[in-house]
Amino acid sequence: MDLHIDLASSPGRSLRARLEHCLREGIRSGQLAADTRLPSTRELCRQLGVSRGVVFDAYAQLTAEGYLHTRGGGGTIVAPAVGDAERSAAPAARSSAIRYDMSPFTPALGGFPRRALATALTRVLRDVPDQGLGLPDPAGTAQLRHALAAYLGRVRGVRTDAEQIVITTSLRHGLGLVWRALAARGVRRVAVEQPGWPGTRDTALRAGLEPVPIAVDEQGLIVERLDDVAAVAVAPAHQYPTGAVLSPERRRALLDWARYAGALVIEDDYDAEYRYDHQPVGSLQGMDPAHVVYGGSTSKTLAPGLRLGWIVLPEPLLGSVLADQGTHGTIPSPIVQLAFADLIERGELDRHLRRQRRRYRSQRAALLAELAGRLPSLPVRGAAAGLYVVLDLPPGADEAAIVKAARRRGLVIEARGAGRPALVLGYGALSIDAIKPAVVELAACLAGPRRS
Amino acid sequence: MDLHIDLASSPGRSLRARLEHCLREGIRSGQLAADTRLPSTRELCRQLGVSRGVVFDAYAQLTAEGYLHTRGGGGTIVAPAVGDAERSAAPAARSSAIRYDMSPFTPALGGFPRRALATALTRVLRDVPDQGLGLPDPAGTAQLRHALAAYLGRVRGVRTDAEQIVITTSLRHGLGLVWRALAARGVRRVAVEQPGWPGTRDTALRAGLEPVPIAVDEQGLIVERLDDVAAVAVAPAHQYPTGAVLSPERRRALLDWARYAGALVIEDDYDAEYRYDHQPVGSLQGMDPAHVVYGGSTSKTLAPGLRLGWIVLPEPLLGSVLADQGTHGTIPSPIVQLAFADLIERGELDRHLRRQRRRYRSQRAALLAELAGRLPSLPVRGAAAGLYVVLDLPPGADEAAIVKAARRRGLVIEARGAGRPALVLGYGALSIDAIKPAVVELAACLAGPRRS
Repeated sequence: MDLHIDLASSPGRSLRARLEHCLREGIRSGQLAADTRLPSTRELCRQLGVSRGVVFDAYAQLTAEGYLHTRGGGGTIVAPAVGDAERSAAPAARSSAIRYDMSPFTPALGGFPRRALATALTRVLRDVPDQGLGLPDPAGTAQLRHALAAYLGRVRGVRTDAEQIVITTSLRHGLGLVWRALAARGVRRVAVEQPGWPGTRDTALRAGLEPVPIAVDEQGLIVERLDDVAAVAVAPAHQYPTGAVLSPERRRALLDWARYAGALVIEDDYDAEYRYDHQPVGSLQGMDPAHVVYGGSTSKTLAPGLRLGWIVLPEPLLGSVLADQGTHGTIPSPIVQLAFADLIERGELDRHLRRQRRRYRSQRAALLAELAGRLPSLPVRGAAAGLYVVLDLPPGADEAAIVKAARRRGLVIEARGAGRPALVLGYGALSIDAIKPAVVELAACLAGPRRS
Repeated sequence: MDLHIDLASSPGRSLRARLEHCLREGIRSGQLAADTRLPSTRELCRQLGVSRGVVFDAYAQLTAEGYLHTRGGGGTIVAPAVGDAERSAAPAARSSAIRYDMSPFTPALGGFPRRALATALTRVLRDVPDQGLGLPDPAGTAQLRHALAAYLGRVRGVRTDAEQIVITTSLRHGLGLVWRALAARGVRRVAVEQPGWPGTRDTALRAGLEPVPIAVDEQGLIVERLDDVAAVAVAPAHQYPTGAVLSPERRRALLDWARYAGALVIEDDYDAEYRYDHQPVGSLQGMDPAHVVYGGSTSKTLAPGLRLGWIVLPEPLLGSVLADQGTHGTIPSPIVQLAFADLIERGELDRHLRRQRRRYRSQRAALLAELAGRLPSLPVRGAAAGLYVVLDLPPGADEAAIVKAARRRGLVIEARGAGRPALVLGYGALSIDAIKPAVVELAACLAGPRRS
């Protein structure tokens, strides 16, 4: 796209300040409407004849201010009017009611172990000593950190003791803490997967870092493209949104790179508990704990509303992350932490995961059968893992238009946003009975998005 | 103190980088031991012949890295060895067991309504729809924001609707969000109370702001000393650690200043529910909602372990704060939010506060009686409010030595850290029976801190 920007006539001493002013005013005045895709930093710096850093910093600033946001495909988009933007957790507020939620990250909330959690919370409130209700340890409660060290070792091959674990509210929170600790050490550039989860890039930008996109193919991150960066964030067990699993060669190459460069790998293990064909591949962290930060959460296994996550940190980052947590006090309630530790220790989490895995396996099989029946020409990609599949579209298909058309029919899906056109179709939140009608709607959108 | 720093021979291009290197290496090598008090920025810039900004930035950086921290009196102190530093929430780990906890912020955790909360949590887990367990609104649940808008209006005279409220984990968290939103708008300098709560200054430093200390006297913040800053954080209802209440003249002057300067007042309303002589003075926010950010939490009314707080924001900051919350996902669990809303709506919070107020009133009276009996020459200061009093010490008394001696006797107290020597004595966590022996220990420390 072409963007009319008049740097010469806008106020501000530096080029960056002027560019920020132009963009901010453009968005405020409505000249740049919500959902407008801005040119890439590469394009815009060429267009304006300024350095790429200037454009990058201006985009980062306006993203931090909430005027812009980034999407899976790496594009920079004008955010909805400030104030509305972040409220609309439920897209329903802006358009027709959701009938089929095929978001890639929503688990089957109907399976949430409400009663087991209520029992655990009641037990905690009965048994916790008074001081357990006082100011919490910024690292999290010792009980949960011990329970997690054992659980993550057993289930994901993570090598850690309780002392290296920091409890967070979410993976986003953990990433923010790690990026800020790196920024405090003088790090400027970090690598992120392209396409990748926007949360990785957004948290890096907020920490003042420059996220350098590195391409992903069907074997995961193309490790040999890593250049002079101090860290890279990857989702080796199940890359979003491609569904790729990092190949054994790439895993080795990535750790070799980290050791050689003295760099850090940040392992986003967001949904690795769900693998339907064989055992999930172990964590990268277990292969080299000194060079890998490991992050996970309960958002896919239990529910995003539990707000519990964790990071496992090599020693040198620990003090800085804990100081940050202590200063900001963004520690989940010890009451919830202790209840989750109780669920782990009593085997409730394992029982829950066995039930959910059965459920997702059949939902996934039903979705694949429906897609094969109704859209036989479109290949389905992605490992038999997690909560979504990727559906390739014919070359030239307009992903964004299809996503919008689907939304008008009450169907929530995502565009992959990079490489050849493709859709990301979640099945976690879709009951087995809803899969057939959802695919019928999807097929209708693909047949004629303009007619809907 | 004198600090040996050799800027000329240390690596780094800028003066700031060299100064950081010197300090960092000094701390790492043990040359600067934990708890060492560094010179003020004013002293050190004179000593080194560099600008004050250089020293300020270096201190801020090392604070962000966890090597330094700040204390109530505004001093900058070497943090305990990185990794240990933030773990030691319980000072017991480092010294003898606590027998009398006179921390100024710890409420009577024995009075925590465990059963009412367990009932509320169970009810929430039974009744919340599945989507309530999904990705939460970054602003917080609508139920809690509505309940709080009504509660804060009724109890504190806050003028707000639910749309202006953002739920946080704590006051620290809220301050961090506000400081970052200001920094994103280009703000550099903000004013903080001196002496004041270290959390205010620490969160400002982390956001990259320069906290400018403004003195406090017995009428609260000396408003006429506010200079060219974009915002000021104050605790008008009960200033920490002086115990002062901002006088009516100063309240008016502060709001006049904010309107005239187009600046923002950040109102820290940390313990205003507790006032024992008359109704607490209403919030500043209620007098001018457009120029005041209001922040509070459940840490004093219920327990720090609940991890729930809130900020009430004027419209222009709202979008930026919500975008920050959405990016970092540091939102307390909706399950806990809804349970707290339930406690408010069923009147449980009011009942709890009535009980606690009675308890604290008698604990405060007992403490004053004991102090008058055993230390009659030392004046007690501070409004009949909150959870602590301030005990003036004789001129020349060594606050820090007395605090240390008390700690060796199992008594936790704080030094005021500015102005004439004084101690901050909390009574919230001290049962009525413990008050007499605690004051006996205190009197022994004052009689001969060196002999203990």
